[in-house]
Amino acid sequence: VAESRNLRLALAQIDPTVGDVAGNARLIAEWIGRAGDAGAQLVVLPELCLSGYPPEDLLLREDFLDACRDELHNLAGAIEGIAALVGFPERVERTSAGPVDPLNDPVPPPAYNSLAVLADGEVRGIYRKLMLPNYGVFDEARYFEPGEESALIELSGVLAGLTICEDIWVPGTPESEEAAAGAVVILNSSASPYARAKGHVREEMIRERARTENAAFALCNTVGGQDELVFDGRSVVVAAGGEVLARAAQFREELLLCDLLLPAADRAPATDGADPGAVVLARLGPEAHPEGHLPQRLAEPLAEAPEVYEALICGLRDYVEKNGFERVVLGLSGGIDSALVALIAADALGPERVSAVVMPSPHSADETQSDARTIAANLGLELIEIPIEAAMEAYDQALGPSFDGTEPGLAEENIQARIRGNMVMALSNKFGWLVLTTGNKSEMSVGYATLYGDMAGGFAVIKDVLKTLVYDLVRDRNEREGQELIPSSVLDRAPSAELRPDQRDEDSLPPYEVLDRIIEGYVERDQGASELVAQGLPEDVVDEVIRMVDRAEYKRRQAPPGIRVSTKAFGRDRRLPITNRFGSMRALPR
Amino acid sequence: VAESRNLRLALAQIDPTVGDVAGNARLIAEWIGRAGDAGAQLVVLPELCLSGYPPEDLLLREDFLDACRDELHNLAGAIEGIAALVGFPERVERTSAGPVDPLNDPVPPPAYNSLAVLADGEVRGIYRKLMLPNYGVFDEARYFEPGEESALIELSGVLAGLTICEDIWVPGTPESEEAAAGAVVILNSSASPYARAKGHVREEMIRERARTENAAFALCNTVGGQDELVFDGRSVVVAAGGEVLARAAQFREELLLCDLLLPAADRAPATDGADPGAVVLARLGPEAHPEGHLPQRLAEPLAEAPEVYEALICGLRDYVEKNGFERVVLGLSGGIDSALVALIAADALGPERVSAVVMPSPHSADETQSDARTIAANLGLELIEIPIEAAMEAYDQALGPSFDGTEPGLAEENIQARIRGNMVMALSNKFGWLVLTTGNKSEMSVGYATLYGDMAGGFAVIKDVLKTLVYDLVRDRNEREGQELIPSSVLDRAPSAELRPDQRDEDSLPPYEVLDRIIEGYVERDQGASELVAQGLPEDVVDEVIRMVDRAEYKRRQAPPGIRVSTKAFGRDRRLPITNRFGSMRALPR
Repeated sequence: VAESRNLRLALAQIDPTVGDVAGNARLIAEWIGRAGDAGAQLVVLPELCLSGYPPEDLLLREDFLDACRDELHNLAGAIEGIAALVGFPERVERTSAGPVDPLNDPVPPPAYNSLAVLADGEVRGIYRKLMLPNYGVFDEARYFEPGEESALIELSGVLAGLTICEDIWVPGTPESEEAAAGAVVILNSSASPYARAKGHVREEMIRERARTENAAFALCNTVGGQDELVFDGRSVVVAAGGEVLARAAQFREELLLCDLLLPAADRAPATDGADPGAVVLARLGPEAHPEGHLPQRLAEPLAEAPEVYEALICGLRDYVEKNGFERVVLGLSGGIDSALVALIAADALGPERVSAVVMPSPHSADETQSDARTIAANLGLELIEIPIEAAMEAYDQALGPSFDGTEPGLAEENIQARIRGNMVMALSNKFGWLVLTTGNKSEMSVGYATLYGDMAGGFAVIKDVLKTLVYDLVRDRNEREGQELIPSSVLDRAPSAELRPDQRDEDSLPPYEVLDRIIEGYVERDQGASELVAQGLPEDVVDEVIRMVDRAEYKRRQAPPGIRVSTKAFGRDRRLPITNRFGSMRALPR
Repeated sequence: VAESRNLRLALAQIDPTVGDVAGNARLIAEWIGRAGDAGAQLVVLPELCLSGYPPEDLLLREDFLDACRDELHNLAGAIEGIAALVGFPERVERTSAGPVDPLNDPVPPPAYNSLAVLADGEVRGIYRKLMLPNYGVFDEARYFEPGEESALIELSGVLAGLTICEDIWVPGTPESEEAAAGAVVILNSSASPYARAKGHVREEMIRERARTENAAFALCNTVGGQDELVFDGRSVVVAAGGEVLARAAQFREELLLCDLLLPAADRAPATDGADPGAVVLARLGPEAHPEGHLPQRLAEPLAEAPEVYEALICGLRDYVEKNGFERVVLGLSGGIDSALVALIAADALGPERVSAVVMPSPHSADETQSDARTIAANLGLELIEIPIEAAMEAYDQALGPSFDGTEPGLAEENIQARIRGNMVMALSNKFGWLVLTTGNKSEMSVGYATLYGDMAGGFAVIKDVLKTLVYDLVRDRNEREGQELIPSSVLDRAPSAELRPDQRDEDSLPPYEVLDRIIEGYVERDQGASELVAQGLPEDVVDEVIRMVDRAEYKRRQAPPGIRVSTKAFGRDRRLPITNRFGSMRALPR
């Protein structure tokens, strides 16, 4: 019968910043210190936490990889009394002579996606990720050579297997080899981005792996926003039977502690790679922790709407803070989309850091203008009023000779939207504020937005939120507040761009319930027209929506980044050509 | 001694359109017909010519892959008297049940990058690309499973090896296995994108392979523009000793014919895969062509400046035509950049399809305005004049209360640029014209351009052309014309954005000779500051330029696509995070 040891494990769910290697090293050192203070023998940190994730083409720069190497060794030098697993990009040393000539040579991946074992003032070993995701938002084959070996560490007589993120999403190697070599706990360092319900799916996946391998699993996920991605944290420890032993919060930094009673290894495995497939990187000797009395930490997962809402808050806050903005500004129309963005901004940054601009034109209804003012007042935002009628007239006059004999139409509507875009950008340029755009995913899909107009800005907070979900989020937020932060008139009014008299979205678009179903199929699940029609959607509407989505590709290419909350967001997730005649002979839209 | 056979080979260097599967099939059939009429026994077509290259995420759609399969079989059914190698995306048939759940499952590549052997009314065999580029502009690991076998065909007793593009850029497999199995000619189907001097490098590479493998090589490259990429054609046939036997034109469709006297196989290789590593896909029986009297076709490669210029013409023309635009419009400032874009547009489309807009403000100098008119007249462009002073005043008034107490600066300058952007976009929206932007790579690098202002438009013709090269291209074009299409005053005047009185680029930027060297190092070769300083560049200037380049990432993310002519263009080629603190603690620019 194997002897049991108590392992006090810490998962440091931190929020590093891409590129800030020195700052991330300080953050990592701070959290390693906290884990040590809490009596942990081992602390796991997220995937590539030293560089931030994803560092993208920074990985092609030697000075960046050198900086990561140097900071890793600085970190190692200061470590004592605890072991730490720290994710970092590890330069591939190649023997071939001479630099790559980009005109002539295929460019090999520059790095490994690695996890360093730090202990006793040293880098005691390095595990290299085996499974490199290269789909959806992931481009790891561009940057990383796959590792070649599964790896274990021995900690106080207990064998633990090392894995990085995708390694355990693909069942089998390395975790199965590690378990076969005697690992009783599999440690996973992740940068697993959020999508709706992803945290639940991730937890179910890891529970299944634990049962399959009959080993405990502990996953430390990064947290925070990085451009389009938001990472939800929700680090978790599960027992070999699949029971969840500990769970961290979503969307916040946390040190998750967990005492694990685990069988000690009954034989010392070889460190020389004699066991094929899994090497023992290091034997670490801290005393097993006396069985502790840690209160169990099981953060309650958020419900559906609050989860998306918190993801948006996290993504926006990190974009603003990591890029050093003091203040944000948005155009407030009195419609539901800008109302939601104002809510999110006020919750993310505090209302004192949000300016709302109301820009009435002759087509603006009194009720919407009044609602916009009510929202600003309810949320406590600074309100700026800039009428645009005089600018509209100046454009009309300047363009008069060119437009002579034409009927007013889309061109004139777009001018209004672009004047507003320019006004908000002028405030941004003058005062250094970040402009938030307010378009939702339904609009972005069909191109129901004006390029350089309402699309002008630095961050598109709700560009991955379908219109039907926009309503859910506002209703839920009102309910949680216990009062109408957003007036019910905003929720009840038929959506309109208000760029011409009596305009309504449904004059140009199908009802949002139908539109959103088509977008979910066509955009998010790559389904074609016939597949959608087979689901009972009307053929003419499906065809028209697909045509609109395809034609709007050129607009989306120039849209600001926004927060991914679905399984397929526009941006790095969905990559389509602009020049694309699939489906029909099409001209670009006007 | 092996018997010799004459093989008449055709390389059909065509210009397919991404997504236009039926149209591409018609184009392919037409060129196969021409090759047959010319007496060729075999015609090679470009990589993925049936789908167009690169189809990007269209490959994730089952209906797209089904359409490619169906059109391939239609093509095969009509083929007789000739064999054809046709590139197409081939769906991977997977045995696992059920669709992929994007929340839970790693997404496997959907297709092979395949080359079909069509003959006698059938698909006689399929070769699957082994080497998948996944760097620079290439994302083939996202889409393609690698093939597993080298492959030969026997044609009139001659053995030929099959390869696709990257396969031969990486020395060794498959071409070495194919040569070892008896192939005396290696056929390569390519979609190899242009960069400056790439055609020469490609030809030198293939000559080296021919000498190494002691086999003739024939490479058919696609031609034409696809969004950011332009393919230069320049298909080539080389003898086993490395001699160039035939070369097609650059940037134009062409059927390149070549008679090759090749040794017949002295033994019939196994078709059952008994020879490890290389299978014989098909034995094709057309009679060897009687040794012909084809005149040798050896297109003269273009000189340095005309080559870039033709690439820009090709890229612009295809973007306009494939997307169905009748006309383009650009703002003509009297500066060198818009002058070059006007030249390219007039050469690409004919001057009758180009409108130039002159938009004077109070800061516009008479001389530049006069030069703009001269350029329009010299090139025969329609000239539209739209003064912007009244609009500037309307913005000043509307923003007066907000800007009260501030000094005029960047915000006011940007308003001017954005008014011009709006005017040009209004013409685009009203009349359906494509707006060309005129910023060069030096500006795009350091962010010396106004988002939604001069950056507003559908296609950025010279965004990958450094300022120093802009001058070279204009001078060269003037010289080739034998007269000053662009007045020498435009070439001689110090560059200025003319957004405030007496403004000059060099007030804000280092001299372009220095700036461009730093950009070549930092942007195009991923060199860091210390590496650049070691090359003799001044440290303070290097640091400042790097800071500017990094800070402008958010602007470039919203820039229109443009034509890649360097080894690293902004866009799909250089992928950096916006949120990025590497180098220094930085805030986003205002």
